Amino acid sequence: MNQPTHRSALLTDLYQLTMANGYYDSGRYQEEAVFHLYFRRNPFGGAFALNCGLELAIDYLQNLTFPVEDIQYLGSLKASDGYPLFSESFLNYLQRWQFKCDVDAIPEGTVVFPNQPLLRIKGPIIQAQLLETTLLNIINFSTLIATKAARISQAAGEDAVLEFGLRRAQGPDGGLSASRAAFIGGCNATSNVLAGQCYGIPVRGTHAHSWVMAHASELDAFRSYAEIMPANCTLLVDTYDTHQGVENAIIVGRELRERGYDLNGIRLDSGDLAQLSRDARAMLDQAGFTQTKIVASNSLDEYEIKRLKAAGARIDIWGVGTRLSTAYDQPALGGVYKMAAIRAAGGTWDYKMKVSEQAIKRSNPGYLQVRRQLEDGVPRQDVIYNEWEHDPLTDGQSLLVPIFRQGRKVYQSPSLVNIQAYAKKQISLFDEKTIASYSIKLEPVLAKLKESLQHQLTH
Amino acid sequence: MNQPTHRSALLTDLYQLTMANGYYDSGRYQEEAVFHLYFRRNPFGGAFALNCGLELAIDYLQNLTFPVEDIQYLGSLKASDGYPLFSESFLNYLQRWQFKCDVDAIPEGTVVFPNQPLLRIKGPIIQAQLLETTLLNIINFSTLIATKAARISQAAGEDAVLEFGLRRAQGPDGGLSASRAAFIGGCNATSNVLAGQCYGIPVRGTHAHSWVMAHASELDAFRSYAEIMPANCTLLVDTYDTHQGVENAIIVGRELRERGYDLNGIRLDSGDLAQLSRDARAMLDQAGFTQTKIVASNSLDEYEIKRLKAAGARIDIWGVGTRLSTAYDQPALGGVYKMAAIRAAGGTWDYKMKVSEQAIKRSNPGYLQVRRQLEDGVPRQDVIYNEWEHDPLTDGQSLLVPIFRQGRKVYQSPSLVNIQAYAKKQISLFDEKTIASYSIKLEPVLAKLKESLQHQLTH
Repeated sequence: MNQPTHRSALLTDLYQLTMANGYYDSGRYQEEAVFHLYFRRNPFGGAFALNCGLELAIDYLQNLTFPVEDIQYLGSLKASDGYPLFSESFLNYLQRWQFKCDVDAIPEGTVVFPNQPLLRIKGPIIQAQLLETTLLNIINFSTLIATKAARISQAAGEDAVLEFGLRRAQGPDGGLSASRAAFIGGCNATSNVLAGQCYGIPVRGTHAHSWVMAHASELDAFRSYAEIMPANCTLLVDTYDTHQGVENAIIVGRELRERGYDLNGIRLDSGDLAQLSRDARAMLDQAGFTQTKIVASNSLDEYEIKRLKAAGARIDIWGVGTRLSTAYDQPALGGVYKMAAIRAAGGTWDYKMKVSEQAIKRSNPGYLQVRRQLEDGVPRQDVIYNEWEHDPLTDGQSLLVPIFRQGRKVYQSPSLVNIQAYAKKQISLFDEKTIASYSIKLEPVLAKLKESLQHQLTH
Repeated sequence: MNQPTHRSALLTDLYQLTMANGYYDSGRYQEEAVFHLYFRRNPFGGAFALNCGLELAIDYLQNLTFPVEDIQYLGSLKASDGYPLFSESFLNYLQRWQFKCDVDAIPEGTVVFPNQPLLRIKGPIIQAQLLETTLLNIINFSTLIATKAARISQAAGEDAVLEFGLRRAQGPDGGLSASRAAFIGGCNATSNVLAGQCYGIPVRGTHAHSWVMAHASELDAFRSYAEIMPANCTLLVDTYDTHQGVENAIIVGRELRERGYDLNGIRLDSGDLAQLSRDARAMLDQAGFTQTKIVASNSLDEYEIKRLKAAGARIDIWGVGTRLSTAYDQPALGGVYKMAAIRAAGGTWDYKMKVSEQAIKRSNPGYLQVRRQLEDGVPRQDVIYNEWEHDPLTDGQSLLVPIFRQGRKVYQSPSLVNIQAYAKKQISLFDEKTIASYSIKLEPVLAKLKESLQHQLTH
């Protein structure tokens, strides 16, 4: 994988560094802590999320350093009394930074649910704490978009889905991370050439309205495009009048045939897509272009795709942009990163939880693992348990796998294509019926620990 | 400015490159075209947008090249017949790429309205077309976030606003671009350290709940934080019980005073912020901490800030995260990039427009400029006109200024602080009364040109 995004240890919240300085200067930086990264609610009002972003997180963790220009910048920051914000000894520590944590994670493309640790970090508190913001930034966005893409791909059924979102994505990396996550979630290709180069995702595209406008007539424009892209010719037919556009596409399709090519497709980008696609299909079929695909775009998402299918649309390929790449109806996943245990050097583990009046905001203490239990190959329930206290379950599969041990990577990410195939299988395992009766439990010993800790902290 | 994001000419839609190949191979690449980048509707159902992103766009345009690894990647792409997707002569052209366009733009921080060209590009069609996706990606997102920040800052009035959005932003650059745009829109500081380093934005932060959880008691945690950050001590008081938290903060505040410091602030992050802030203010005042600020965070945006102010909240500083950095209620600005004129080498300009049954989707032909007219220093109307046909207006200010001439930069971006100050003045000029009666007109000669072109293209 190439490195498309700017990696910097400073891509974090200031308070991570001031807290790290606090742990350092108070001599507590060798204490160990456990943190879990998880979300509290499925996005989009749905029944699941598709875990995504681990490879990007690994890349961040592997390359985390504080080069001299970063140290100099931090050293230049002043507190309100004019003294340096950070202590010199802490900055020296950062300059010597060596990643020492154990990291376990659920592999990308796994169907996951609220309160399941997607990442588990155990290590020196000064390090484990410092990772919070960046890991959340990476996993929140990738998981959000992969989930959206999975929902859109489910709606599209066997049809291909192309991701076209770059121009309205949230910044350059908003587009790039989104293309990767969308592919994992089930998209077949992207329009984003850099995502093709960096991640090996297939790239696809047609032409713009401006191509048609730049020619004396639509027919001229189509002929000219067919001339240079005879084998990849998909014509955008709605610049002036869609019916006329389809007729012109058919004329060019006939000319392509004389040259030994076939018209790949036409694209509809406005108007009543259900009606226009039926009309276009009839016109194409009647002219003998039964293999020519109809591509549609224009504010599509899973709801609109379902609506169009119900309305009898004859669309073969769905081009999905803004609503996928920005997760338009819920543009953020509220993932959190919570401390679950801590111990002084040589001491015993002390369980920790975030208490709250709202039950949903109470975090789980412990060193958590998720066991997924199947019956005849069908997933039946997930049990969240504390690995230190109890492993009550001999059957089923542990979802978290080792990624780093004392800072050394012990995991090899699968290829993107394999992650996509695994995700597809996961999503098909969790069909509507399975998910409706699916059970997610706290193992009883953990539930009791949580209850007594909540009681102890609030009484 | 440092270069935080990955700049690559491949961060574009594939069809920009296939169309460019088309213009090249058909020998039309020396034809000139004019494109305008604009949006059609104000975001957030508001009455204006705050233009933002120009400096990032300039950076992209100045550094646009096709290094050999990009050429190799493009050369590796195959059409469906197995032949290379791109012609060798076109790839050679890319390798020799030299930017040759004229670019005019409205400066960052200007209040702008629908259909006004934020950028105007004139140059070889093969180049002007190729820029579309990346320019849209940059300007759409920055303008969206700057506008959101302006709305939030307006709601906050004289209070400070801190941007805390990185952890739930859309990827690394989603966070970074958002921090820059949020500062231009009026935020006082960011939690994003990299944005501080790259853009010189002031960085701020407190501590997390985990800091409190890592200590034996809240009081211990506060003391320990005050020990290392005596001059920048803002304490998060809601980890266990907010009233108890404020009492603990007051104890630590007294201890700080004995050391010659003052307690900077407390932060509320949950619960009924109106009630809790009133209670906290009373407790702090009674204990003599009248200068200690109350910072609030938790799903804040302009609506929530207004609601809390109306409910009598005593909040001095607003920490705004997800809802700002992702523009949660409208996560994309629908900016477009449309061709407005074209001419063959040595020929005359041929006006172009995108026709549509929907009036809002009809683009304006010409070489557009916006004249802003003031009366006694108060903006009264904007007139959009075609610079080639008619400059009917001797008074007022032309909003678009020269940025590039034949590919050479002729503009120096102001400093970020100056852009922020300019934006603040712009926003105060466009107060509610001014904006309610503001008029945005097409100059009559342009309106007539548009009408006749629409007629000609659809009849």
